[in-house]
Amino acid sequence: MKNFTYQNGTKIIFGKDTELQVGSLLKEYTNKVLFHYGGGSIKKTGLYDKVVRSLREAGIDFVELPGVKPNPRVSLVRKGIEICRKNNIDFILAVGGGSVIDSSKAIAAGVNYNGDVWDLFLGTPIKHNCLKVATILTIPAAGSETSSGTVITNEEGLYKRSTGHPKLRPIFSIMNPELTFTLPKYQTSCGIADMFAHIMERYFTNEANVDLTDRLCEGTMKAIIENALRLNNNPKDYNARAEIMLAGMVAHNGSLGMGRIEDWASHDIEHELSGIYDIAHGAGLSIVFPAWMKFVYKRNINRFAQFANRVFNIDININNLEETALAGITALENFFTEIGLPTRLSHVNIDDSHIEEMANKLVAHREHAGNFIEIRANEASQILKLAL
Amino acid sequence: MKNFTYQNGTKIIFGKDTELQVGSLLKEYTNKVLFHYGGGSIKKTGLYDKVVRSLREAGIDFVELPGVKPNPRVSLVRKGIEICRKNNIDFILAVGGGSVIDSSKAIAAGVNYNGDVWDLFLGTPIKHNCLKVATILTIPAAGSETSSGTVITNEEGLYKRSTGHPKLRPIFSIMNPELTFTLPKYQTSCGIADMFAHIMERYFTNEANVDLTDRLCEGTMKAIIENALRLNNNPKDYNARAEIMLAGMVAHNGSLGMGRIEDWASHDIEHELSGIYDIAHGAGLSIVFPAWMKFVYKRNINRFAQFANRVFNIDININNLEETALAGITALENFFTEIGLPTRLSHVNIDDSHIEEMANKLVAHREHAGNFIEIRANEASQILKLAL
Repeated sequence: MKNFTYQNGTKIIFGKDTELQVGSLLKEYTNKVLFHYGGGSIKKTGLYDKVVRSLREAGIDFVELPGVKPNPRVSLVRKGIEICRKNNIDFILAVGGGSVIDSSKAIAAGVNYNGDVWDLFLGTPIKHNCLKVATILTIPAAGSETSSGTVITNEEGLYKRSTGHPKLRPIFSIMNPELTFTLPKYQTSCGIADMFAHIMERYFTNEANVDLTDRLCEGTMKAIIENALRLNNNPKDYNARAEIMLAGMVAHNGSLGMGRIEDWASHDIEHELSGIYDIAHGAGLSIVFPAWMKFVYKRNINRFAQFANRVFNIDININNLEETALAGITALENFFTEIGLPTRLSHVNIDDSHIEEMANKLVAHREHAGNFIEIRANEASQILKLAL
Repeated sequence: MKNFTYQNGTKIIFGKDTELQVGSLLKEYTNKVLFHYGGGSIKKTGLYDKVVRSLREAGIDFVELPGVKPNPRVSLVRKGIEICRKNNIDFILAVGGGSVIDSSKAIAAGVNYNGDVWDLFLGTPIKHNCLKVATILTIPAAGSETSSGTVITNEEGLYKRSTGHPKLRPIFSIMNPELTFTLPKYQTSCGIADMFAHIMERYFTNEANVDLTDRLCEGTMKAIIENALRLNNNPKDYNARAEIMLAGMVAHNGSLGMGRIEDWASHDIEHELSGIYDIAHGAGLSIVFPAWMKFVYKRNINRFAQFANRVFNIDININNLEETALAGITALENFFTEIGLPTRLSHVNIDDSHIEEMANKLVAHREHAGNFIEIRANEASQILKLAL
C-alpha cells in the first residue's frame, strides 16, 4: 500500500424530498448563487420549480445559466465566469448531472483566475481562490457530486481535458433517487458504465497489498451489477435507484483509491472518442474499457482472475488463470450488453478513420496515459482497433 | 434505504514517516496545543521525541498532559479542561489510541461549556464551540481518529458513557502503520475486535435494501480477518498492519452506516462490563457480541445467514438457514479465539455476581439499548448469562 492523503468533506444529503432543503442549506453560505443547469428536463420534471421556490423561501437571489450540454463546453464556462464576475456571485448551484456539475466547477475555478480558464485544463495549477459549488444531482454517473475534478471540452480542436483541486469539491450535494426515475434507460446505463469504470480505473493497479480497497471496489461493483439488472426490469424501483446513486458517489469520492496507484487510461482514451464523436461518455467507456482490458490483462493475470472471481462469481481455474481472466472480461461485456450498452465502436457506427488522430491527440498534452501499462499513441491505436 | 446525511472532513495522512509532518500540519491552524497522551509507550518507542522535534521545528508551543488510561476517566478530562482554559489553548494534539483521542475530544467539548463536562455525557447537547483536535494514531481500534464520538468513564459509580458531535471529528489524523509494530498481540487483537464490532453494529439492521453498504461492511470484515491472521504469524508485517489500520478507520468513519439503522446494543452492554471490571473494550466485545448474536439472530435469520456466507465463506443451507446462521456465529467465535481473544466471561474470570447490576445500569440513563431488538435490563441480563 502506498502512502496517501485523503480528505473529502462534501456533505451528502441523501433521500426522498431532500431537494426541498436546498434554500436553507445554501443560506448558511451565501445570499446569491449562479443557478446552473442543462436544458428542459428539470423544467419538465418540476425540479426547476421546486428549486426556485426553495431559493425564494430562503431569500436566496439567483442568476440563471441554463444550456449545459453533455460533454460540457468551455464557451459556456467562459460565459458563466463573466456572469459571476459581473454579478459578484461567489457560489454556484449546479442542478443536473456530471456535465452541469463539471461546468459549475470550471466556472468556480475560472472566476478568480487572471487568464483564460482553459489554461487550467492544460496544466496551469489552481493556486487562486475558487468559488463554492453545491449540487442537486439528477444523473448518477460521474461522481462529480463529491469529487475534486472536472472535465471540459474545448470546441476548438475538440479537446476534452480535466483538471481538479480539493477546493473544487462541492460543499454539499443533494441526492434524491426519485429525481432519477425519469432518466431514459440508455442514459441510466451510460451512468452505470461510468461509475463502474471509475472503480475499475482504481481496481486495475500494480500496487500489491491493497486488500481492503480491493474488497471495497469489488463490493461496490457487485452492488452495481445487482441493482442495474433490477432497473432493467423496473426503472422506478426506488431501492435500486438509491443503490445506484449511492454507488456512483462511492465509486468516485476517492475512498476506493486509498493507497493505490490508479490508472485512468481508458477514461483518457474515451475522452478522445467523445471529444471527436460527441457520444455519451458512458457508452464510450463500455466500448473502450473491455478493449483496454484485452490489451493489458497479461501484465497481471492474477488481478484479472480475481476480478472475474470476486465480481462476476466465475470459478478460478487454477491451472489456467488466463482462461478465468478472459472470462471476467467477457462477463463485463455481457453485463454492459444486458443493460443496453455498446461494447464495440461498430455498435455506435464509428469506423477506423480517426483512430490515428485520436491516438495522437491522447498524447498531445501528456507523455503517456495510464499507469497499469503506459499508453502512448501506438498502444492507444491498438486498443481502439481491438474495440472496432 | 433510509434518508441520511453524511459528512466526514477529517484529513487522513497515511503511511510511513507521516508523523514527521505533525508540526507543519498543525501550523496551519494554531501556534499552541495541548499535547495529550498516555503513559510511557510513546517515550519508549521514540514517538514522543519525534513529535516534540516536529512541534519545535514548526514553532508550535505546547503544554503536556500525559496520563490517559484505557477507559479514559472524566477526572483527567476535567484537568485538561482547566489547563486549556488557563493557557488559552484552542487545539489539542492527541498522540495515542482511542482512549487518548476520546479524552482529547471530551476536553475539546468541555472547555467552552459552562458547567461540568460530564453533563455532556448524560444528554446535554453540545451547542457551544469546541476546540479543534488532531491525532497521531498508535492503536487501530476505536476509529476515533475520524469519528465524531467519544466515550468516557466516570469513576464515581463507574459509568461509561458516550457523546458526540460533528465538530468533534479530528481536523486531521496521522496514521503510520509502523507505529503499531510494537503493540502486543493481545492489544492488537482487542483493537481488531473493536473495529469488527463497529462494522457489525451497523451490519445487523432490520433496514432492508442496503445492498451497497452490506457489501462494503462484508468486504471490510473479510479484509480484517485475512490480515488479522497474517499478524498472528508476523506482527511486523507492514502490509497487514496497514490494512488493519485502514480498516479501523473505514469501520467507524460513518460510511458503512449510510442509509442504515444501526444497533449499538453490544457496545452499550460492553460499556457496563468494562465500566465495572476495567477489562479491555475489545475483549469485552469479543465476549458480548457473540452472546448478543445468539440472543437476537432469530429476528432476522436471513441476515445472519448472509453474514455467515459472505464474511466467513460458509455455504448457505437453503433448507436450514438457521444452521447457516449459527455456523456464522461459531465462525466469528473461532476467529476471535484464533487471534487470542476471550469469548466467554469465564475466560476473563468474571462470574455472574454483577450481571443484574450491569443490566440495570444499562438502562439507568436510557430507555433501552439497541435497535435490531430493543434491549432492556431483562434482555441484557439474558445476554450476559449467555456469555458466562
